[in-house]
Amino acid sequence: MLVEHTDVPAGMTYRQAARKAVAMCVSDFAAKGARPDSFVVSIGLRKGVSQEQVDALASGLRDAEKEWGVLLVGGDTNEAKELVIDCAMVGFAKHLVTRSGARPGDVLIVTGPFGYPPAGLRILEGSVAAAAEFGKKAKASVLDPTPGLEVGLALAPFLTSAMDSSDGLARSLHTLAAESGVGFEVTELPAAKGVRSFAAANGLSAEELVLQGGEEYAIVGTIPKGRVAEARSSVQKAGGALLEIGKATEAGQIVLKIGGNRRPINDAGWTHLR
Amino acid sequence: MLVEHTDVPAGMTYRQAARKAVAMCVSDFAAKGARPDSFVVSIGLRKGVSQEQVDALASGLRDAEKEWGVLLVGGDTNEAKELVIDCAMVGFAKHLVTRSGARPGDVLIVTGPFGYPPAGLRILEGSVAAAAEFGKKAKASVLDPTPGLEVGLALAPFLTSAMDSSDGLARSLHTLAAESGVGFEVTELPAAKGVRSFAAANGLSAEELVLQGGEEYAIVGTIPKGRVAEARSSVQKAGGALLEIGKATEAGQIVLKIGGNRRPINDAGWTHLR
Repeated sequence: MLVEHTDVPAGMTYRQAARKAVAMCVSDFAAKGARPDSFVVSIGLRKGVSQEQVDALASGLRDAEKEWGVLLVGGDTNEAKELVIDCAMVGFAKHLVTRSGARPGDVLIVTGPFGYPPAGLRILEGSVAAAAEFGKKAKASVLDPTPGLEVGLALAPFLTSAMDSSDGLARSLHTLAAESGVGFEVTELPAAKGVRSFAAANGLSAEELVLQGGEEYAIVGTIPKGRVAEARSSVQKAGGALLEIGKATEAGQIVLKIGGNRRPINDAGWTHLR
Repeated sequence: MLVEHTDVPAGMTYRQAARKAVAMCVSDFAAKGARPDSFVVSIGLRKGVSQEQVDALASGLRDAEKEWGVLLVGGDTNEAKELVIDCAMVGFAKHLVTRSGARPGDVLIVTGPFGYPPAGLRILEGSVAAAAEFGKKAKASVLDPTPGLEVGLALAPFLTSAMDSSDGLARSLHTLAAESGVGFEVTELPAAKGVRSFAAANGLSAEELVLQGGEEYAIVGTIPKGRVAEARSSVQKAGGALLEIGKATEAGQIVLKIGGNRRPINDAGWTHLR
């Protein structure tokens, strides 16, 4: 469910908001290894909404249909105090990837770099400076999120556990750890290119941008050690990349272990109603 | 999609609101002859919502699961400026009843009396007086709507067209007429017991309460003349009643023809964003 005041930042058009509402579902399907088939959408419109805005929503839904090969088959329209777009998606999987199958020794992987969305949000709010190329990518990650559906489907057969990183990498690690009964040791921060210099230039923590962001629409998961090479090849054929960032350990801690330092990764990601 | 300021009248608890959100889907399934199997629900909660209110929503969803034999299998929670509960339901039908199959000569039927919900809304707002028994039924029709799922499934094989009456009987007739390319002649107003005296006592029009209400969650449909007896028997076995209220005619008009009078039925039912 996309809700305007939470999920539609400054600078996002209605067309982008509608596409994003579908992207949020597609990302979940990608992380579960399920191919989406069709979806329904309920839309709550503010009183006074213009014909242009309604047309823009329709265009965004059509963008999503084409991009991910899904079909809009029904829905509902309503009046609401803010824009609400809620999609429910139906699809098929041979085998569903759960959050509970990680085992100590499994390799911890992600399918994309982290840090663009929290940087992009700050740039859109106009509160920070950024290099042109980095700013462009960071803003695009917020306005036009791109869940890797084909990458997810190619990766699924190798995963022992996975979820998408909608509420931040740290949250994903804590969730997978709790549901699988394991710990994690992160030995590599999957920082997007330019995040460190962006952070330094604006007095921000790159580590925080990478770990505590959210809406990266990348997959966080675990793979048995012996299957990583095969998984990497499958993901590359689908046009993606597999980043190894650590390993699952016995239950207990979720730690960052880099350059001799070892300290806990706290979960400070997005929580509604906080 | 149930939205607080539109769909949750004064006097409705969160438990009732959650049950109603599911009822809205069940009613559509009943009118299409499809047995619902499971549903997902996205909930937008206002900041400051209490634990008791969240528990009440959960109880309402559980009420719905038991009442209609459906299973809540997933969903999403969010923060929103008003309560929003959006359900998407999955189910199965051997044959789907459309809105476009009515033919001139078909008998026009409804599965329940009309007028309780618009009366109940006025009673809940405290703006009118009502006899105790009538008031109780009218209020219950708003707070605890009861779509007739088994009645709908029993009726479906006989229907040439149907929809539920969520936006009023007049709106349903206009929609079915437009989509089937027919007209309708209504010769019997399906007024709920007590509507006429309630209307008279409060200076309201009984005809308007019956035709222009909404949220009756009854089915409005058409049946070929030769199958009415069989349909009636099937509906009665399912615990319901079939009310014949007129017939489909050649395309053109939707008229009320009672006691020698004949005049058009306008569509003044609920329209969002009006």
